[in-house]
Amino acid sequence: MATKTGKNNDECMNFKPINSLVTPMLTDMYQVSMAYSYFKMNRHECLAVFDVFFRKNPFKGEYTVFAGLEEVLALVHNYRFSEEDLEYLKSILPNADEAFFDYLRNLTTSGIKIYALKEGSVVFPRIPVMRLEGPLALCQLLETPLLNLMNYASLITTNATRFCEAAKSNSCDKVLIEFGLRRAQGPDGAISASRYSYMGGFDGSSNILSGKLSGGEIPIKGTHAHSFVQSYTCFDEITNPKLGNVNFLEIVLKYRLEMKATSTNTGELAAFVAYALSFKDGFLALVDTYDTLKSGTLNFLCVALALHEVGCKAIGIRLDSGDLSYLSLECRRMFEQVADRYQIDYFRHFNITVSNDINELVLNSLQEQGHSIDTFGIGTNLVTCQAQPALGMVFKLVELEGKPRIKLSQEVTKVTIPCRKEAFRLFGKDGYSILDIMVGCDEETPKSGTRLLCRHPFNELARIYVTPNKVVPLHHLVWDGTLKIPIPSLSERREFIKSEMNLIRADVLRPLNPTPYKVSVSSELYSFIHDLWMKEFPVKELE
Amino acid sequence: MATKTGKNNDECMNFKPINSLVTPMLTDMYQVSMAYSYFKMNRHECLAVFDVFFRKNPFKGEYTVFAGLEEVLALVHNYRFSEEDLEYLKSILPNADEAFFDYLRNLTTSGIKIYALKEGSVVFPRIPVMRLEGPLALCQLLETPLLNLMNYASLITTNATRFCEAAKSNSCDKVLIEFGLRRAQGPDGAISASRYSYMGGFDGSSNILSGKLSGGEIPIKGTHAHSFVQSYTCFDEITNPKLGNVNFLEIVLKYRLEMKATSTNTGELAAFVAYALSFKDGFLALVDTYDTLKSGTLNFLCVALALHEVGCKAIGIRLDSGDLSYLSLECRRMFEQVADRYQIDYFRHFNITVSNDINELVLNSLQEQGHSIDTFGIGTNLVTCQAQPALGMVFKLVELEGKPRIKLSQEVTKVTIPCRKEAFRLFGKDGYSILDIMVGCDEETPKSGTRLLCRHPFNELARIYVTPNKVVPLHHLVWDGTLKIPIPSLSERREFIKSEMNLIRADVLRPLNPTPYKVSVSSELYSFIHDLWMKEFPVKELE
Repeated sequence: MATKTGKNNDECMNFKPINSLVTPMLTDMYQVSMAYSYFKMNRHECLAVFDVFFRKNPFKGEYTVFAGLEEVLALVHNYRFSEEDLEYLKSILPNADEAFFDYLRNLTTSGIKIYALKEGSVVFPRIPVMRLEGPLALCQLLETPLLNLMNYASLITTNATRFCEAAKSNSCDKVLIEFGLRRAQGPDGAISASRYSYMGGFDGSSNILSGKLSGGEIPIKGTHAHSFVQSYTCFDEITNPKLGNVNFLEIVLKYRLEMKATSTNTGELAAFVAYALSFKDGFLALVDTYDTLKSGTLNFLCVALALHEVGCKAIGIRLDSGDLSYLSLECRRMFEQVADRYQIDYFRHFNITVSNDINELVLNSLQEQGHSIDTFGIGTNLVTCQAQPALGMVFKLVELEGKPRIKLSQEVTKVTIPCRKEAFRLFGKDGYSILDIMVGCDEETPKSGTRLLCRHPFNELARIYVTPNKVVPLHHLVWDGTLKIPIPSLSERREFIKSEMNLIRADVLRPLNPTPYKVSVSSELYSFIHDLWMKEFPVKELE
Repeated sequence: MATKTGKNNDECMNFKPINSLVTPMLTDMYQVSMAYSYFKMNRHECLAVFDVFFRKNPFKGEYTVFAGLEEVLALVHNYRFSEEDLEYLKSILPNADEAFFDYLRNLTTSGIKIYALKEGSVVFPRIPVMRLEGPLALCQLLETPLLNLMNYASLITTNATRFCEAAKSNSCDKVLIEFGLRRAQGPDGAISASRYSYMGGFDGSSNILSGKLSGGEIPIKGTHAHSFVQSYTCFDEITNPKLGNVNFLEIVLKYRLEMKATSTNTGELAAFVAYALSFKDGFLALVDTYDTLKSGTLNFLCVALALHEVGCKAIGIRLDSGDLSYLSLECRRMFEQVADRYQIDYFRHFNITVSNDINELVLNSLQEQGHSIDTFGIGTNLVTCQAQPALGMVFKLVELEGKPRIKLSQEVTKVTIPCRKEAFRLFGKDGYSILDIMVGCDEETPKSGTRLLCRHPFNELARIYVTPNKVVPLHHLVWDGTLKIPIPSLSERREFIKSEMNLIRADVLRPLNPTPYKVSVSSELYSFIHDLWMKEFPVKELE
């Protein structure tokens, strides 16, 4: 597997968004209207600070995995309006000054600084995943594409980690394959789903294009479908039954007699023989087209025995319907019987892959019932994030020309936290993280071994002293006109996510009623923002 | 608005998928494995017939709108594996015969026939939306990309029609704008959402790129965000308060005094003035940044009066929070008071646009409560199809080399209906459709005025005689190596959907407890498929 350690200068030349539609035009009209008005008022170059964050973790969970940074940086790196873009913009803004289009023509991202979490970080509500510092109009134009590129990426990555957790059996990892291309929300949704579910811990995908686009990093898997089985009705359809010098079909039929499996579906057996002839070292059979136990699994075993006789090893079976717990245990029992009878030990360990509308609840329920499944193929529920198909990341102005800005709201949780902030994760002696804290950029940063008052941003009574054993800054400068970080490979990000999750307590990560993770502000920031709120929020008057 | 009546030969040269990632590689690995095995067994050119259909309407509804055909045809039209694709496929199939890659290198879609519904047709479960007749391996390779391109397209189009129905007020259409770019499932999800929601009846989108890609067909809308309002704190920030020769700010401040609106938020008023100076004929103000009634709407009215004085007309307001029913009615009341006071009639009719997490239920509930909203901006719930984020279209083999094929299942509703079939919609004298019927391709087609027995495909007691007043064939040859139909413009498809929906009874279309529409088979087809099932489905034996 490739392990690019970063993008060097040569690679930067080819550093482009995966989808060629990701351009400055992938934005909302109001961003352009606002940019025009800023331009008219000569405020477009005012130095603004925007935070990107979300208010609620998805899937009734208490954590989120941040993803989409590489794509954001690819857009920022290539940010240029084309002449064709400008022509179209003129057509929808027919009264705008020509000078505005000149401004857009020359607009680059060289004047912007972006601070972000590492891609794959575990992140919690209100901690900015990204902070942008730069010209007001440009930041505004970036809002929509950045949210588009991070919202779904973070959602599907988080979803994938949850599926992986749910599929763990007695702390033993299972293999998970993403099967969602046909049901994803469009071609790009499918490709993102493959990439990000691999990042989130999946072991591969059925989606060939995603494998190609990943430069071979994402392993691609797949055998055959029901239609393949249906396409055979008899042995005559096997035009060449030979494997090397031996008549493979004859060997299969010998075992069929020995196994007393002559009443299985013949078309199915023919299909399996044809498949084994094509993939003698990759025989994994879909066994539920007619009857899993009375036909499919018996037919599989006949072919597996024949393969063994010619010196090859079958891989296993796939179940796509029925009671996956019961059927997997029964199939395993059949494998063991044949392993005993023929004294072939690896038959016990044939792979059992299952698919069929699997979601997190099904995985949890399979664990409770018991099963003998090795590999899960997961499609629709993973890729469309059926349990919650959108994440609500927002992009909020927090400072302009050095002055803090807030968005007030009747709902206190919707009030934004103003000013330039940094965030830190504080760790305890046990190695787990205790909480995250936001600190004004001009404040002293938290230090390990130094006692610190951490305050809930809204609830004045919720305060806690923490003496951290370790302090990790969460934000890193990733762009200041050029790329400031190496882009890790997908596999590196995949490993990083695993390491990140190992630092968070299990009760925060668990699927059911997880413990909320503490996100706090420094005492100084607390006072600053509350003073500002009190000043800006009008005292109403009753008459 | 462009009204292309079709793609002529020149246009065909440029007839490409919107997303350049839509290529033959956008498929599942098992399609390639199966194609290889068919190739090895010399069965890849066997003539196969596949049906594409779904089993259940989405959103607890009883209808679906078919979409995605243009994209499917664009893929089929450009279907070619590149050398780069073949290199990658070799890397994941290292043991495959070189001849297979030669086969793929030369593979085209010239040998395939595709029959489909018109894009925008209202369609019901089990009626094939598409039938493919062609070489087995090629059909198999097409399965995944075709499903990907039709599943989400049909889902979001159906969703859009439901939102449009729900937003109708006293049979009066409201304006609906798609706002979902930032929350969509990736860039392509967003672009598809804009296209297909426009097709489904929406009036525009905020997504600039979708407007550009539609060649200007999709109207693009948007004004300003909260951050724009927050970015102003005082009138000094308006660098040039002049509109032509007049000091516009002074006029606004005159009305502010007259209206006794001096305690509104000054930054907000400054922002509105700046926006009006930039868009004097397009002033639509977001009024809920501080306080909708006590600040935003009053500030809007001051600016609207000033615009009126200089000979311009304001457009209206946008509400993005709070009780949209109550606030819209209160704002309307304020508009009417000012209209009365200043004798300016159009003030009564200012546009009220609302946004903020609107879904079908919210629309229905707003209707019940009463409101004075003109325009709905709808994002997340529309584009991610939150109520059901995937449609389950499937692609099933129904005939091979002239022989019918079925997929058996313990669940009768999962059994496929074999053989080449055509489908017809039968209409009554009232102009509404009565039912759809599937008929074997070799059978006589239904005729208007001729009595016909229509049978439920599974329930032998459910039979009905119909003497149709009109018979409409649903399937059309759309591809036979070249494009067989003109591709209608988006707007034409949008009108077609409306006309289609007008032919379906309201009780089928209604959101709550709709009546299931009847999908039947001819008496001949009924007998044929039941005989086949009986023959193929084994009689189990108890011992």
